[in-house]
Amino acid sequence: MSDVRLIEIKEDILSDNAGLAEELRRRLREKKTFLLNLMSSPGSGKTSLILRTIEKLRDEFSIGVLEADIDSMVDAEKVASRGVQAVQLKTGGFCHLDAAMVRTGLDAFDLDGLDLVIIENVGNLVCPAEFDTGSTKNAMILSVPEGDDKPLKYPLMFSVCHALVVNKVDYLGLSDFSMELLRERVKKLNPDISLFEASCKTGQGIDGWTDWLAGEMRKHLK
Amino acid sequence: MSDVRLIEIKEDILSDNAGLAEELRRRLREKKTFLLNLMSSPGSGKTSLILRTIEKLRDEFSIGVLEADIDSMVDAEKVASRGVQAVQLKTGGFCHLDAAMVRTGLDAFDLDGLDLVIIENVGNLVCPAEFDTGSTKNAMILSVPEGDDKPLKYPLMFSVCHALVVNKVDYLGLSDFSMELLRERVKKLNPDISLFEASCKTGQGIDGWTDWLAGEMRKHLK
Repeated sequence: MSDVRLIEIKEDILSDNAGLAEELRRRLREKKTFLLNLMSSPGSGKTSLILRTIEKLRDEFSIGVLEADIDSMVDAEKVASRGVQAVQLKTGGFCHLDAAMVRTGLDAFDLDGLDLVIIENVGNLVCPAEFDTGSTKNAMILSVPEGDDKPLKYPLMFSVCHALVVNKVDYLGLSDFSMELLRERVKKLNPDISLFEASCKTGQGIDGWTDWLAGEMRKHLK
Repeated sequence: MSDVRLIEIKEDILSDNAGLAEELRRRLREKKTFLLNLMSSPGSGKTSLILRTIEKLRDEFSIGVLEADIDSMVDAEKVASRGVQAVQLKTGGFCHLDAAMVRTGLDAFDLDGLDLVIIENVGNLVCPAEFDTGSTKNAMILSVPEGDDKPLKYPLMFSVCHALVVNKVDYLGLSDFSMELLRERVKKLNPDISLFEASCKTGQGIDGWTDWLAGEMRKHLK
């Protein structure tokens, strides 16, 4: 009984959320701002990838970051220390961002001056996948130490993302992680996903990811 | 507005859940069954720790495992292959277990014949922390590659657990993870937590954890 009630509630929230997300996407198109929703487990490297992305793209694009950490300003401070606009959303106990929370965050930016806003979603492979944030594109990180079986366990997350960055490839060989098996499992769920192998620590493979993102942005900004 | 509504809904579910969880705990005391709720991020090593725990404790205690994976039977099959009773709960899109779901799972076991049931909760550092499952004790895993900053970002999870296993210590030295800093951050949130350093891969440190668990079980079974 408890299950059923929870499902009903979620559907109710989702139906409100879908309309709001579309409204946000319209506004972002008008403002020519690309909104990237970046998701992953805790500790997969979202902040590190954002810092690498800023480093590569800041000369061409103006960038803002919307941080959704729970009870911590750590990541926003790291980002702000690079001289990029950062807004911290305090999600308290919340396990995801929805379109209403993202709208509140975007209101704190001057979108006319921003080409790209990156959402660092709450570290969670489950709930954030269920909520449309109004983003232009969704991307996720899977880090090698998490294992190659994650697409089997969290299929929705792998299905809603346009790009997957496999981070911490410098850890390959320390476990039985198979990149081939991972690719196979991911492509079965989502044949169109763009997959990048990278290490935010060493910088390896970051260009592939930022080239993809810059390409998507140029399409959007046209 | 959307935020406020979600909070109300959560409180409503939680108040139902608390009563159900207490009811479950009474039943488990009568049956002399210890219920361990094991939580962590995806890929931290829940299944590996369960397999190591079974290996160490199976001669002294009869053990069952309640698996809460999303859309996958992988872990239940691994556990069942060791000759231990395993029940798989299909949580679909759910991001946590609540007491009602655990009750459904426990109904599939003969509790009279079981000293210990281990719940492998959904891989998530946020939502499972909010729901009392009726467990006797809560434990969590943090793996070294996830980083030493996780207590700052997911304080509730570290606060509701009686034990923390820091897994994958064989990865220490590959990043700037500081065990000292982690201990400090964890103890600030939860001074009474028992902390164990372990590697499920090599077997290092598993005894400390299983000694703690066996001790807690003996207290409960008295």
